[in-house]
Order: sequence, then C-alpha cells, then structure tokens
Amino acid sequence: MAIDFTEESAADAVIESFHATPDPRLREVMISLTQHLHAFVRDIRPSTSEWQQTIDFLTATGQMCDDTRQEFILLSDVLGVSMLVEAINDRNTPAATAATVLGPFHVVESPPRELGDTIDLIGKGKPCVVTGCVLSQDGSPLPGALVDVWQANEEGFYDVQQPGVQPLGNGRGLFTTDEQGVFWFRTVVPSYYPIPTDGPVGRMLDRTGRHPNRPAHIHFIAGAAGHTPVTTHVFVAGSPYIESDAVFAVKKTLITDFAHIDDPQRAREFGVANPFAHAQVDIVLESVPGAL
Amino acid sequence: MAIDFTEESAADAVIESFHATPDPRLREVMISLTQHLHAFVRDIRPSTSEWQQTIDFLTATGQMCDDTRQEFILLSDVLGVSMLVEAINDRNTPAATAATVLGPFHVVESPPRELGDTIDLIGKGKPCVVTGCVLSQDGSPLPGALVDVWQANEEGFYDVQQPGVQPLGNGRGLFTTDEQGVFWFRTVVPSYYPIPTDGPVGRMLDRTGRHPNRPAHIHFIAGAAGHTPVTTHVFVAGSPYIESDAVFAVKKTLITDFAHIDDPQRAREFGVANPFAHAQVDIVLESVPGAL
Repeated sequence: MAIDFTEESAADAVIESFHATPDPRLREVMISLTQHLHAFVRDIRPSTSEWQQTIDFLTATGQMCDDTRQEFILLSDVLGVSMLVEAINDRNTPAATAATVLGPFHVVESPPRELGDTIDLIGKGKPCVVTGCVLSQDGSPLPGALVDVWQANEEGFYDVQQPGVQPLGNGRGLFTTDEQGVFWFRTVVPSYYPIPTDGPVGRMLDRTGRHPNRPAHIHFIAGAAGHTPVTTHVFVAGSPYIESDAVFAVKKTLITDFAHIDDPQRAREFGVANPFAHAQVDIVLESVPGAL
Repeated sequence: MAIDFTEESAADAVIESFHATPDPRLREVMISLTQHLHAFVRDIRPSTSEWQQTIDFLTATGQMCDDTRQEFILLSDVLGVSMLVEAINDRNTPAATAATVLGPFHVVESPPRELGDTIDLIGKGKPCVVTGCVLSQDGSPLPGALVDVWQANEEGFYDVQQPGVQPLGNGRGLFTTDEQGVFWFRTVVPSYYPIPTDGPVGRMLDRTGRHPNRPAHIHFIAGAAGHTPVTTHVFVAGSPYIESDAVFAVKKTLITDFAHIDDPQRAREFGVANPFAHAQVDIVLESVPGAL
C-alpha cells in the first residue's frame, strides 16, 4: 500500500510496486535502481529547484542525441560507467590484450584495405607506420585475422566529424593478417582531442573544472576464428592527457611507443617520407574454449 | 591518475576527477552521484547490451519531452523520487496541510474566478461543490488567501491534453478567500486517470506489471501573506487506485469525502443540479516565523 509515503518508507513502497514484474532480471534491475537512486537522493537532499535542474540536464542530454551524436554515451563515458561496464564484462585472461571502450566514432564500416595501404587520405600529418601481429594466447600467430582500425587525424577529428573536409573513410581501414599473422599500414600520428563540448556533458565538465581531452590513440577491433574478439585502443606514449583521459579508458599495457625514426632507407622501404613514427602493435586474443 | 581503471578503483578515479569543482555543492553532488551510480552498476553487473538498452531508454525519455510533455518528470514520479524530494523539502509542522507533488499539468495560469463560480465549462459530469476555508496553524482564518485549483474532467483528461475538445481553462480557477477565509466553487467530480502511457515510461510500467493510474483528485496551491504556500491534492475517498497511485502521491490526511447529496433545496442554494457531490476542503498554512 503506497500511502503516506515518507522519506523512510519511500524506497520500500516503490520496490513493492515492482513485485509483479514478469521478467526476473528486469525486476532485479528495477529494485536495485530504486535502492541506489533513492539512496542518492536521500544523500544529497536536493531542493525542489535542484531536482528540476537535474530533470532539465537529463532532458537536454536526450535531446542532444541524433544519428551521429550520442550524448548519453558521452555522459556514461565521463562518469566512468562505460569503462566500469567494460571492466565487468572483460573475461579475458591477463595474457590477452586488454579491452577498452568502443567510443562513439565507430559509426561507419571501415573500408577493406591491403596490407601496407595508407589509411591517411589527406597527407598532412607526421607519417606513421604501424606494424603488428595478431597472436593466440599461446603465442602462435593467427593468419586471416581481421584488424579493424579507426583514428582521428593530426588535428584530432574523425572523418564523420568533418564531412566535406575529410573524405569518409579517412583514418579507417579493415585489414586481414597474412600467413604469419602480420598486418601493417601507413597513417599519420593521431592527435589528442576533446570530446564534443557543445552539449550538456561539455557544460558539466566545464562547471566541474574537468578538461574534455582524450590522449592520442588508434582504435582497434581484432578478431580471428576460434578466438574472442577484442575492442581496444593503442595510446601514443607521451601524449598530453595520457594520465587524465576524460573517459578513463587508458590502461598501462595499451600505452605504445610511437618511435621517431630518422632513417631514409627504412622510410623508403615503408613507402613514407622521412622522418616518421613507427609503432609495433601486437594483439593477443584469447581462444574460445572448445573451439577448433 | 586515471590509469588502469578497474572495477574496484573506478569510483575513486572518477571522484578524484571532480576534486577541482569550484562550486562545493556541485562537487558534493557529483561525488555522491558517482558513488551511488557506480554502486548500482557494480550491483546489477550489466552486460554491454543491457547498458546499451539503458542508454537507449534514457535517450528516448529525453526525446519524448516537449513543451507540454515532460517524460523525465514522469520517470521521476513513477520511481517515487518526486515524492521523496517533496518529503525531503517538506518543512511543515504536522498541523499544516500536507504537501504532495505538483504534477505535470499546471502548465497554464489558472483563470481568476469569483467565489461560487464553476470551473466546469462543459457540464457533463456529476455536479460537485467544493467549500473550504484557508486557516493559519493557530486556527485563525486567512482572508485574501489565493487558492489555485486544477483538475481532470469526468473522463480523466486535463484541458491541455484535449485542445479543441475542452476549452483552455476548463477545470482551472484562481480564487481569493473572503473575509472569513472562505472559498467555494462548483465543478464536476474528477475521474481517476492514467498518466501518459505512449512513451518510454509507459512501456516501463507495462513491462514491470504496474498499472499507470492515479486516483481521482483535485490539485490545490494555497498561499497567504506571512505563510508558507502549500502545493497539494485533495483525493476523492473511495476512488479506484487510492491505495496504488502510480506516482505515490497519496497521503491519508488528503483523502476527502466527496459526499453524495440528494437535497433539492441545497442544490438550489449552490446553483447545481440535484443530486450532487460535496467536498469540504480546509487548508491549514504554516506561518513564516517573524512575518507580520
């Protein structure tokens, strides 16, 4: 009976209202939500005006979303919840490459490319060569593995953020490892960049004295038959904000040296201008138990 | 340093990111939000797909909002948070009339009316007379008090929900008490009604086996010089759903007898058809300490 609802009885009355939820998992989630949400409200004791501001913030966050902008994912990201969900779902052994967030920019399919192709369709940044190997956890190379990569350009923007400035597909490529499990491609060294700051989440970061920046990185999704795919980043060692990523996605094992190479001979071999950066990115996948 | 974020260290890393928030109240709120939100996520351990569904639900809730629809308030209402915030902010002594939620339908100004006027501009429901007195907590009547009322019609709809069917202002009136602190008006007995069910909140109620109905009520805001105004409802005793209000707003002291009167003489005196309903609604306001 939901009558004479008081501060003390409130959560119990709402929990009781969910007792007939047919799906047990949904019932469990609604009960937990009620407990934690009410505990939060009892903790902060909002004024009526503060609660209205909360309603207004959530409304504006929903209304900022469209086909290419997901402000609630951004909110989940800057509150560390996306990485927490990632950590909860990461079942990989420590030997496998660590996972991190997908991020909001994997919004178009990466164009299939040949090994050694460049994903830089513009040619303005510092040339970069990425070489690597996809391996099983026992160290054996994985031929025919798919390596999907996407990155911001040297100014910190993804192709989808700059229609008309960058061609669609710039900074993106889908590669297949050779018989030694090897992949390689040419690109430019990505820049650190701010997450979009023109919405409610950006205003929240501003009001809380937080910067909006992510350290420079290249996104990878790698998959091979009989193995669990991994969604991850490779972070550029020494990038600004490497220790204060606005979305908390950095893991130490993902920080990679983008070595400065000044060697005309090697530049010629890779087909890039000298000097250039070189990153070696080996990706270890966990085999699925029982898979052939 | 927000590196190597784990399930255990996640909340602390996010809390640390808010350490430079200039406004101490905002810092307190963000820290509490982080603690409770992370505790909720650690508790339910959502799959990636479940967290995406949560993002989608919040996005759809924001996108359902417009000038006359506030789906996030509705969500706050059905999770009992609006009433919890109300309870937290209710500083009144037990002698004063209890407050309850404002609700989403006080969206236009109530038209000023004379005592005894009808707020029913249609004339189809069961006639009803509401008489009452606005009093200070010591029992003295409050002349010149403002009494703002609004209600659904006999079919459970507010004027703003039925443009073209109900004239704007139907079911609404702003009255001023006479020298004895008395007010009265004519209307129709309101019906119970469902909160809007065509959005994400309605779907959530459906999936959790909850009905969307609110017991029949009339909204009041009463205010007088030197007194704290009160926002409340008067609930129709015996209404369906009186013990399971979808938004948890019922308080026992607010349940009021809408007596069935079959008395042609009294009907004539009130200027209504016989038989009719009669509710006596006395509203007690708390005086502001130090006010004259």
